[in-house]
Amino acid sequence: MQYSERILKTPSSFIRNILKVTDAVDVISFAGGLPNPISFPVDALQASVDHAIRENGSKLFQYSSTQGYALLREYIAAKYKRLHGLDINADDVFITTGSQQALELIGKVLINKGDGIVIEEPGYLGAIQAFTLSEPTFYGVTLENDGLNLEELENALQQPNVKFIYTVPNFQNPTGLTYSKEKRQQIYDIVSKYDVALIEDDPYGELRFQGEPLPYIGAGKLENSILLGSFSKTVTPGMRLGFIITKNKQLMRHIETAKQATDLHTNIFSQYVIYDYLANNDYTEHVKKIIALYKNQSDAMLDAIQEFFPAHVEYTRPDGGMFIWATMNNGASSLDVFHKAMEQKVAFVPGDPFYTSKTDVNTMRLNYTNATPEVIREGIKRLGSIL
Amino acid sequence: MQYSERILKTPSSFIRNILKVTDAVDVISFAGGLPNPISFPVDALQASVDHAIRENGSKLFQYSSTQGYALLREYIAAKYKRLHGLDINADDVFITTGSQQALELIGKVLINKGDGIVIEEPGYLGAIQAFTLSEPTFYGVTLENDGLNLEELENALQQPNVKFIYTVPNFQNPTGLTYSKEKRQQIYDIVSKYDVALIEDDPYGELRFQGEPLPYIGAGKLENSILLGSFSKTVTPGMRLGFIITKNKQLMRHIETAKQATDLHTNIFSQYVIYDYLANNDYTEHVKKIIALYKNQSDAMLDAIQEFFPAHVEYTRPDGGMFIWATMNNGASSLDVFHKAMEQKVAFVPGDPFYTSKTDVNTMRLNYTNATPEVIREGIKRLGSIL
Repeated sequence: MQYSERILKTPSSFIRNILKVTDAVDVISFAGGLPNPISFPVDALQASVDHAIRENGSKLFQYSSTQGYALLREYIAAKYKRLHGLDINADDVFITTGSQQALELIGKVLINKGDGIVIEEPGYLGAIQAFTLSEPTFYGVTLENDGLNLEELENALQQPNVKFIYTVPNFQNPTGLTYSKEKRQQIYDIVSKYDVALIEDDPYGELRFQGEPLPYIGAGKLENSILLGSFSKTVTPGMRLGFIITKNKQLMRHIETAKQATDLHTNIFSQYVIYDYLANNDYTEHVKKIIALYKNQSDAMLDAIQEFFPAHVEYTRPDGGMFIWATMNNGASSLDVFHKAMEQKVAFVPGDPFYTSKTDVNTMRLNYTNATPEVIREGIKRLGSIL
Repeated sequence: MQYSERILKTPSSFIRNILKVTDAVDVISFAGGLPNPISFPVDALQASVDHAIRENGSKLFQYSSTQGYALLREYIAAKYKRLHGLDINADDVFITTGSQQALELIGKVLINKGDGIVIEEPGYLGAIQAFTLSEPTFYGVTLENDGLNLEELENALQQPNVKFIYTVPNFQNPTGLTYSKEKRQQIYDIVSKYDVALIEDDPYGELRFQGEPLPYIGAGKLENSILLGSFSKTVTPGMRLGFIITKNKQLMRHIETAKQATDLHTNIFSQYVIYDYLANNDYTEHVKKIIALYKNQSDAMLDAIQEFFPAHVEYTRPDGGMFIWATMNNGASSLDVFHKAMEQKVAFVPGDPFYTSKTDVNTMRLNYTNATPEVIREGIKRLGSIL
């Protein structure tokens, strides 16, 4: 059989592939992007299953609306209004099968083969993968310590048929970097001159363990703003619940058609359960506990890096989220180091799959959320010994 | 903003759009394709939530494998081996976010713009919608009382770049028709001469209330067989769990990449719960109850049609499943009749969205699974008065 051009171009997820080896019990893995399972509110979710079934019966089990459960959408709208001052209501919120699906739907409704996508370099590999299905041209813009390089951004936006810019402004995946307030304003000023959408993908924004929360770049201001959120990092990824926020009604209608054609609607059982959980528990307190946990783990990794990594390795110091990004300035290839590291039973993600225009890079992504401080120290020690 | 060509071509679901009007409380609706909610094993599923959490803890809530929960895949493989003699194992089974996603993933991995898809005429509108996202050329083949018209099938397969044939061999949506044993063999003989995949979409196969079960057309025999199944019609559609069975390893690898890029993996919480339900309950007995329920409702609709529909209306007599298909031989347009019917507070789906090459047809789909015999009689009486 002949397969489609788009699938032959789409990279299989490097992370999901290496998980098969890095998940071995004797390997210390900094490779995944998994939340710490002790952060899942298992008992409260179990209680919410019972409560939601008692209150709503068979509605949890029947086919449901494409846009998502109305009360959950109202909850999300009210929260973003309260915390971020966004002038939105439930109709501006669309529930997706995880944030990953949001990315894929947006590609579907906006990208013709060859159209331009501006993306952070390095950028989130799940986004690269999702967008690749629409066969775009990627214009990578260097992600600096305080956000996108502005000159490169202007150049990229002048390319033909650029449809959107994809950003992760808070504790970016893979780098852990956060856009500064000034850079956000400068990016807003640039983007507002062009007829493009600005995607702000914000799965980690609530997981800030230091510094002040910063305003979104375009959400609430730009006509073609698309803000993405998720319950995967603060409640549970297993239920695959994410959401799109946009006030662009035409875009929303097209997303609804794409979603119908793609999987009809998001698991309604899980939507009822998560809504019940949010409505009947102190979510803010719950998130505070995750923040304390991850700050501790991040500190453990930064301390161990300082102790065990050679001086030629530079690394980021995240204000939140799940990742540290390290750069080896001794000419080493991170893919080579990955294989050496696996011999030492320690894993990370080499930088390669995060770039749309480079290979054989000298960078690596280190995740600290899914291991204890003791294990983190041991893993970084092993890794330091081969750098 | 400019939207993609593919989304501008994709029809918004006629059914999902009319549900907004047909769902009014005083309307008798034969429009949806909803299982009867009394068929959902709510108590048993609730018990399975508790049991699955007790046994597996945080695994229900964490990220999980793209291919799906291994024990669920093993269960499905063993069942199809036992009941249908298929020589498959868990690796030949892939869990999807409902069958709808299976259709969309198959389109993604096989169809380049303009490639051919052979589809029943009339055919399942959800499939038409899912495939349209890949911008194919549809070759409609008339669905006769015993299956596809063979001459049209041969002609269609000789068109350029035909990638697959899409069929619903048991109690087809929208017609309720079932392919005869002879026609299945004839189709197999024809298809095996061509390098195309044969999709057999079988969400209703277990809901047979009369006649003998029939062998699949290609599953277990054709190299490029793709068999689709679902838990939506027998357990719960709300959890969005379907599956793909194929022994073509290369196809499976491409589907896995497409699934990664599309939504990472299917809701793992629901996979654990459904598996626990299947492992600890008498599923066969449960399905027998649904069959008895639907047979009773189907009989009620057929009796009422005989009593209230004028003689110019022909209709199918399903051996199972959820639908009856009626054809008006008096020159009426079913869209016109739909509007008149809504004035009488009764709804159905006009035939139009089930065709890829015709509009303004004289056919209608009637669903009988989601109303009591009394309500069915009243609705058919109202409908008969305007035909």
